[in-house]
Amino acid sequence: MNFASDNVMGASAPVLEALVRANDGAEAAYGADAVTARVEQRFRDIFERDATVFLVATGTAANALALAAAVPPWGLCLSHQEAHVIDDECGAPEFFSHGAKLAGLPGAGGKLAPATVADYLAGLSSSVKQMPPSALSIAQVTEGGLVYRLEEIAALAQICRGRGLKLHMDGARFANALVALGCTPAEMTWKAGIDILSFGATKNGCLAAEAIVVFDPVLAETLAYRRKRAGQLLSKGRFLAAQFEGYFAADHWLDNARHANAMARRLSAELAALPGLRLAWPCEANEVFVILPRAVDRALKGAGAVYHPWSDRSLADGDRVGADETLVRLVASFATRSADVDRFIEVAGGALRREAAA
Amino acid sequence: MNFASDNVMGASAPVLEALVRANDGAEAAYGADAVTARVEQRFRDIFERDATVFLVATGTAANALALAAAVPPWGLCLSHQEAHVIDDECGAPEFFSHGAKLAGLPGAGGKLAPATVADYLAGLSSSVKQMPPSALSIAQVTEGGLVYRLEEIAALAQICRGRGLKLHMDGARFANALVALGCTPAEMTWKAGIDILSFGATKNGCLAAEAIVVFDPVLAETLAYRRKRAGQLLSKGRFLAAQFEGYFAADHWLDNARHANAMARRLSAELAALPGLRLAWPCEANEVFVILPRAVDRALKGAGAVYHPWSDRSLADGDRVGADETLVRLVASFATRSADVDRFIEVAGGALRREAAA
Amino acid sequence: MNFASDNVMGASAPVLEALVRANDGAEAAYGADAVTARVEQRFRDIFERDATVFLVATGTAANALALAAAVPPWGLCLSHQEAHVIDDECGAPEFFSHGAKLAGLPGAGGKLAPATVADYLAGLSSSVKQMPPSALSIAQVTEGGLVYRLEEIAALAQICRGRGLKLHMDGARFANALVALGCTPAEMTWKAGIDILSFGATKNGCLAAEAIVVFDPVLAETLAYRRKRAGQLLSKGRFLAAQFEGYFAADHWLDNARHANAMARRLSAELAALPGLRLAWPCEANEVFVILPRAVDRALKGAGAVYHPWSDRSLADGDRVGADETLVRLVASFATRSADVDRFIEVAGGALRREAAA
Amino acid sequence: MNFASDNVMGASAPVLEALVRANDGAEAAYGADAVTARVEQRFRDIFERDATVFLVATGTAANALALAAAVPPWGLCLSHQEAHVIDDECGAPEFFSHGAKLAGLPGAGGKLAPATVADYLAGLSSSVKQMPPSALSIAQVTEGGLVYRLEEIAALAQICRGRGLKLHMDGARFANALVALGCTPAEMTWKAGIDILSFGATKNGCLAAEAIVVFDPVLAETLAYRRKRAGQLLSKGRFLAAQFEGYFAADHWLDNARHANAMARRLSAELAALPGLRLAWPCEANEVFVILPRAVDRALKGAGAVYHPWSDRSLADGDRVGADETLVRLVASFATRSADVDRFIEVAGGALRREAAA
Repeated sequence: MNFASDNVMGASAPVLEALVRANDGAEAAYGADAVTARVEQRFRDIFERDATVFLVATGTAANALALAAAVPPWGLCLSHQEAHVIDDECGAPEFFSHGAKLAGLPGAGGKLAPATVADYLAGLSSSVKQMPPSALSIAQVTEGGLVYRLEEIAALAQICRGRGLKLHMDGARFANALVALGCTPAEMTWKAGIDILSFGATKNGCLAAEAIVVFDPVLAETLAYRRKRAGQLLSKGRFLAAQFEGYFAADHWLDNARHANAMARRLSAELAALPGLRLAWPCEANEVFVILPRAVDRALKGAGAVYHPWSDRSLADGDRVGADETLVRLVASFATRSADVDRFIEVAGGALRREAAA
Repeated sequence: MNFASDNVMGASAPVLEALVRANDGAEAAYGADAVTARVEQRFRDIFERDATVFLVATGTAANALALAAAVPPWGLCLSHQEAHVIDDECGAPEFFSHGAKLAGLPGAGGKLAPATVADYLAGLSSSVKQMPPSALSIAQVTEGGLVYRLEEIAALAQICRGRGLKLHMDGARFANALVALGCTPAEMTWKAGIDILSFGATKNGCLAAEAIVVFDPVLAETLAYRRKRAGQLLSKGRFLAAQFEGYFAADHWLDNARHANAMARRLSAELAALPGLRLAWPCEANEVFVILPRAVDRALKGAGAVYHPWSDRSLADGDRVGADETLVRLVASFATRSADVDRFIEVAGGALRREAAA
Repeated sequence: MNFASDNVMGASAPVLEALVRANDGAEAAYGADAVTARVEQRFRDIFERDATVFLVATGTAANALALAAAVPPWGLCLSHQEAHVIDDECGAPEFFSHGAKLAGLPGAGGKLAPATVADYLAGLSSSVKQMPPSALSIAQVTEGGLVYRLEEIAALAQICRGRGLKLHMDGARFANALVALGCTPAEMTWKAGIDILSFGATKNGCLAAEAIVVFDPVLAETLAYRRKRAGQLLSKGRFLAAQFEGYFAADHWLDNARHANAMARRLSAELAALPGLRLAWPCEANEVFVILPRAVDRALKGAGAVYHPWSDRSLADGDRVGADETLVRLVASFATRSADVDRFIEVAGGALRREAAA
Repeated sequence: MNFASDNVMGASAPVLEALVRANDGAEAAYGADAVTARVEQRFRDIFERDATVFLVATGTAANALALAAAVPPWGLCLSHQEAHVIDDECGAPEFFSHGAKLAGLPGAGGKLAPATVADYLAGLSSSVKQMPPSALSIAQVTEGGLVYRLEEIAALAQICRGRGLKLHMDGARFANALVALGCTPAEMTWKAGIDILSFGATKNGCLAAEAIVVFDPVLAETLAYRRKRAGQLLSKGRFLAAQFEGYFAADHWLDNARHANAMARRLSAELAALPGLRLAWPCEANEVFVILPRAVDRALKGAGAVYHPWSDRSLADGDRVGADETLVRLVASFATRSADVDRFIEVAGGALRREAAA
């Protein structure tokens, strides 16, 4: 019953097999190999666009490089106040961008409303004292497990265009959002106004494989140098590329995401049906945010369930977590077993019944 | 006949097998997993010292993080003028250190003489205009394929101690140097005065696995934060660690290095025995630097040999490369086949005989 | 009637005279001159402490250098959410610190309560994902014109000590706060727990003269290099030092501050006595924050008064500015004339009477 | 007899008077004042071009800001190996540019030959490992006191254009070079291909007044933000501007430079006429580089002469300084008195005669 994160499991079988298969023979170093060339082209096919693709080893590197390409050292990047780029990367965007600032805006469930962004921008001074707003970064899936609808992305993109901001998508859970929306990768990105994308694959079945997909050619100009000097250009580049070959083959990535989402959806539905529990937000992809009575929390942990507590800062007003409650995050992955979901519900239900009886 | 680099091959079998073996089951993310803990302890056993170990994905990251720990943004780092950290990393040390300067000193075969370092330091002003010298970085194996003897390292370390400089070793080919000297890892590092080490494993049989091994505890204090914000802390950390498990098991790493060195030594000896060829420097590890008549170069390439030309800047004075010659680097790896060495010698010898006959 | 800022006037006469006086003859360059040596000693006398002093040309440089000395590139600096270092320096602290983050905390009138700081610190994770809190920066006078009492500074310092944070004071209006409290410079700084101070003199009668006064010797170690490479070490250093000689002579600086504070106090008292006006916060130094009916605002501007609107973000809750009102800042300086205060009150009073009659 | 530098004297009288004159009355802060507007226009008149002008307090700031505008963090800036930007600013260009590298090229007397630059560029790899060359910085006057002819600048500019490099001029002694060439400011800069200029005034009669003059509009785009966040935008901006008003009025700046050059030329000529002395290079502006017998050096210092020793690294080959000699730099300024030149020659001549007699 490990629901701690979608990065606690290793690689899925087709990814690992592709890696092993790619190991033989000599290949040019530093990304000049044939596997990398094939994978970069595969990205362009998937995104129906002549995008530039940079493979890197971690999501933090993908996000920080992408933001550094979009925001000058004196620029301001807007994002949700609980965004991974603000809260969880030890200042990687500040490091890669040479000192840009990230402004955190509020929004229930980690989602930014267009009006919130527009109002914030309208309140900024145009003085040289003010770091000029240069980009907006949104997470798809959000930190609260929500999924931006295509029209929501387009509305944010329109604000960005009007103010000269670049629009970045942190797609650490790109596939989970994609299958939730049932749209194409192109529709969820450049067709909706995304300029640059962090395309995550690690959480959804790879070992360590992320990509920066650049739709705005201007943003691609500096990234080859930035990636190299950041130590993110692997000498045996086939290692990154091979994972993507296994990931993309026969829509394996979409299957993985569908499984994770289905597990989360069932978990969410069955939890919500239990009296005495409530969801913090709806489950829209592969994460469930639920407010548990502390007794239930203890029972679950006693039964070996693993998961993380979560901040209630992005709960809607008037919906705070009580003193006898705790807000927790449950994450399903490609490897989550149905039996674990059953067992989790069973333990939670039992604890609630004991509570009610007491 | 691919002698281009020791990073053109994939992983050796035991490394890949360890990776596959480590893939099963859930593990804590971000380096808190059991495999990483075991490997960090393995490093301490190998180095006979309570060192702090930071696993990263590339040698550029290892070098740049290590130098950033040792050199403040306004500091000066000395190294050989053809060092990888100066010439081949697109300014990674400058990026990670926030603007430190690398001063390149001369030395035949990429090796720095103690007097060269001492004289350079003696010539620096103590004014605030002068970036203060903060570290010396040496490559073991050097860029010219030479190996520092233990007493040479100790002599450099003594100069560093006297001037308050930290001593860094770029051990991209650590194992090759180690088996060449026949000493222990401890003797080649902290016992000789090394403060911080980039321990390379990628070139010698891993896919992407490097470590920063810190002997001076002061230098370790900042590296956890630096690594995280550089995007070098992998979420599925077992991937890096598992490679090292396969690498270290049953002295596999030393076997790989001995094979590579033996292949290079034979290549070097047989080339040197051919009339009309000369070595730029002796072969001391797994690289051969040889000055070829252009006709021989053409014949080798025609026969499918792959290798890189090399700068003659570090040749001893009076030993320049002639107009009809070219200096090339030949690198042997764990995967180099004896038959490729034979064939290389055969093609070179044939071309020389044709030249002599013409 | 220019109340826009205390930096709209030139230098006061004794400062300018000292500058002219110091112009003759040859002096060593780059701060090695006799005038600088005298002034650095004068600082130590005034602060009753063997502090290290770095003269610089602007307050932004003083703040940013001081914070860079206290906060590593991956560190977090706490300050008020409207602090000058966050809002008005185009990211200078981020630039000088190489990417540190400034966290803005709330507080009425720009003042931070100890509990606010303690709670914020308690809520931070100790994970490597979290930039570690490294310093607290407070402004004395605050952005809202308030003055921290000595015991308030001491309470913040105690929290800092307990968590290993350095405590910085942005003393752009140091003299105004000092004469408001009637204490000694030592009492308002190191005796209350300040580690490093930006000592402003420009606003209070100099042309361009600020100093970083370092009480914690560890923080002084890097500043000579940092100042030089930031282009803040003037070649004709006597220019900065001479201003301080005139500034400190015969307590001229305290006289200037007393005059400014007295003008502001009278302006504040007379405004508060007018029916229909209200102060946003009490006037504690040389700034008045007053909420004006828009008609009064128009009348004042029509009569030639110059001042800036101000954000109401730090008003106490339930005390927002109405739709027909505007919050403005009025700043008195060493050069503010009593007649301007009279005239300002007269125009405001007349407008209010006309409003009441309408 | 102070020939140590042209920054050991204060301001010349017209500059100081302009400063005093500008002190009265209220002016908008942060460079929005009327004096600054007038001076920026004056620069455009003098340079016959719609240039963008940024006033700053130091030459280090001017150089480092200008180079940061021209060179990305991963870029390479070429300059002479003894250039001020490489040797004397504690890494300011590296700091302001966020980690760019300065490559130092050789050249007698601090002057770069076009072929030297072209050959260096031709030798660079086009790999992503190589920091891409982005700018060339030349000093006019050079570190060795030489003056680039207009056609020499144009030849360097042509190389830069061909390779996409920006051309920066460090004009710390701009006026001295200008009157030496007898050309217009436009001819010595943008008409010869200069893209961005550090215009120095401090050494030639100001207290602390430098300007970045930007001819290439693209390079101007970021400088307002860069200057602000570097703490180089003075709040009482009139102080910088007023110095320039005095400096430019009635060609005062050219008079100052002519005087300094004349003093240096006479000093040079009379030294060269003394048997036993030799000039390191010809005196072309306001500096004399002369190789003195140590006995003469001792006699001069005994008589109270002040000057600095100098490196002989840029002497032509075969022209090294002997064991009984020392190479020194003598700098004349607007304030150098003819009597000091006479006395210097007299002491040197006397010492030489005593030597010859001994």
